[in-house]
Amino acid sequence: MQTLTVELEDRSYPINIGEGLLGQHSLLQAAVPARDILLVSNTTVAPLYAPAVKSALADRRVVEVILPDGEQYKSLATAARVFDVLVANRFGRDALVLALGGGVVGDLAGFVAACYQRGIDYVQVPTTLLSQVDSSVGGKTAVNHPGGKNLIGAFYQPREVLTDTDVLKSLPERELQAGLAEIIKYGMICDSAFFIWLEHNMAALRALDATALALAIHRSCQVKAQIVGRDEREQGERALLNLGHTFGHAIEAATGYVEWLHGEAVGVGLLIAARMSERVGGMPADDVARVEALLKLAGLRTAAPKIGAAKAAGYLSIDKKVKSGRVRLVLMKGLGQAYLSGDYPDAALQETLRESFGA
Amino acid sequence: MQTLTVELEDRSYPINIGEGLLGQHSLLQAAVPARDILLVSNTTVAPLYAPAVKSALADRRVVEVILPDGEQYKSLATAARVFDVLVANRFGRDALVLALGGGVVGDLAGFVAACYQRGIDYVQVPTTLLSQVDSSVGGKTAVNHPGGKNLIGAFYQPREVLTDTDVLKSLPERELQAGLAEIIKYGMICDSAFFIWLEHNMAALRALDATALALAIHRSCQVKAQIVGRDEREQGERALLNLGHTFGHAIEAATGYVEWLHGEAVGVGLLIAARMSERVGGMPADDVARVEALLKLAGLRTAAPKIGAAKAAGYLSIDKKVKSGRVRLVLMKGLGQAYLSGDYPDAALQETLRESFGA
Repeated sequence: MQTLTVELEDRSYPINIGEGLLGQHSLLQAAVPARDILLVSNTTVAPLYAPAVKSALADRRVVEVILPDGEQYKSLATAARVFDVLVANRFGRDALVLALGGGVVGDLAGFVAACYQRGIDYVQVPTTLLSQVDSSVGGKTAVNHPGGKNLIGAFYQPREVLTDTDVLKSLPERELQAGLAEIIKYGMICDSAFFIWLEHNMAALRALDATALALAIHRSCQVKAQIVGRDEREQGERALLNLGHTFGHAIEAATGYVEWLHGEAVGVGLLIAARMSERVGGMPADDVARVEALLKLAGLRTAAPKIGAAKAAGYLSIDKKVKSGRVRLVLMKGLGQAYLSGDYPDAALQETLRESFGA
Repeated sequence: MQTLTVELEDRSYPINIGEGLLGQHSLLQAAVPARDILLVSNTTVAPLYAPAVKSALADRRVVEVILPDGEQYKSLATAARVFDVLVANRFGRDALVLALGGGVVGDLAGFVAACYQRGIDYVQVPTTLLSQVDSSVGGKTAVNHPGGKNLIGAFYQPREVLTDTDVLKSLPERELQAGLAEIIKYGMICDSAFFIWLEHNMAALRALDATALALAIHRSCQVKAQIVGRDEREQGERALLNLGHTFGHAIEAATGYVEWLHGEAVGVGLLIAARMSERVGGMPADDVARVEALLKLAGLRTAAPKIGAAKAAGYLSIDKKVKSGRVRLVLMKGLGQAYLSGDYPDAALQETLRESFGA
């Protein structure tokens, strides 16, 4: 087991990464030091892993909320249902929310924990590659609004993250690929050596090679933890973690959050960001080609849905990174050199959108 | 105008208290440095004061949400409606929520500001005495759940509070009295000299004497700001501000949040806390009598509804101050000497509940 710490003063917490962690009762018991536990999971994950968790916590009062599986349930209405369960069971401020699932479960359960009684403890047990390398780290919790993703949420840190790489064996290939997109993102933001490593090890990752997976997850969490440690509430640098996301969100929103997985949309978003960066940030054409090639190696899509540039632009304008009416974009000077900018020619954005989304 | 600061490092903010502040355009303009402003008010307050606010902000984009008046609208459903307005108007992270109203408006608007896009700025313009001395200060935002008050919320500080004492002239007498209960509370917690001052100046306060009001509001905010500055997230000392509230919440909940004003319930709660303190905290009987006398001077009720001790105890157990299944109470050793305790004989609590709520 490897442990790394997200350094946030009194909100610091450990991320534990290793094989078979869910089978280690003492580890779970120590991570969850509460009497009353709300276990939030979904109909796909709960049958696989909830029994192990409950068995480890047999001496506690564990109440389960099993949500339907899917991004469309990451809503304020679902959060309200979870609040109802907490209240109905008279859970107090010393209760703990244990999120067992992917990003949807983690984001929603974290938001509920952030708001219930103005904040109770929560622990993340991410069960998808994407949530292991991204959403379980850094304390961004949220639910979606019909008008846009993650529009209602809170910055709220978990007290611990338990990442068991064994659970990836039951993950559908498409979900694995979606997680790889976020891993590729970290290389593109600030670690070109990691990007090169990924170019050489993508096949091993897709074959679930344990050593390769542990390294990729650890390095991804490390990059994210460092950035979050310097800028928890996204006043500046943390926005770099949204590389590819502004475009990706447009894809997800335009297709109703059901057709594309988040990571798949981010993958295409990374490529669109690279193309825009070639236009305005001086990113070499060769780097753009390497991004496209690595996405393909990961089995990811590289073509956006042809929703039209105008519709895509509409979704950009509700993005959370809008400042004074202007969309700030994460761009790159080259692989591993991301920066945030609201200062780019509109024409370049329009061209990029037309190229990617159609006229 | 007097200004005091709530000291919370990068979340510090000023509370401005004075006569006629809403008529000073430059003051409002400086307090609200955003282009996009969501003005949240209610059907009672908006006709009286929204025109002045909008006139001062004529160069901004001001969108109004006017809620029905009443505690029953401080709900997640109402918050959802306000989120809808923010999204429909494509308000970004740089938008600002301006709460113009009493505690219901301020708590709800603050909660929406805390959650929208994971937190946007908000400014409080409290228009009741109660919100001026209590809910507008300290960053406790929340909505109610049918199972209990303020069960869903966030600690989230405003960027400024503008307290215009002139607005109290239009406040119904019952609302004024409700605010006086919270003012009395501050004396009981930690300032016996202020309690004595109140014994001598209650008539002036009820007659809306401007000098007396300004002094009472300033001193109340000062006490609250000092405590909040030392314990923002209620890890310890801040819980003292809940003196009377655990019992008061039981009264409100048992009567459906409509029959009793919050401050009225807190007033009776203060007396019940004093009686419990006489039993277990060594509070002199004479101090208990002075509390009852001062509440009467303020025109407040002193008798709890006869809902029965068992029902009252049920409401206590869902209170946010429950720790490990035990209700922690704010008690007093005497006037101005409050302390927090989970360590008291259950029989004393039962006796106190029977005495106050009936068998």
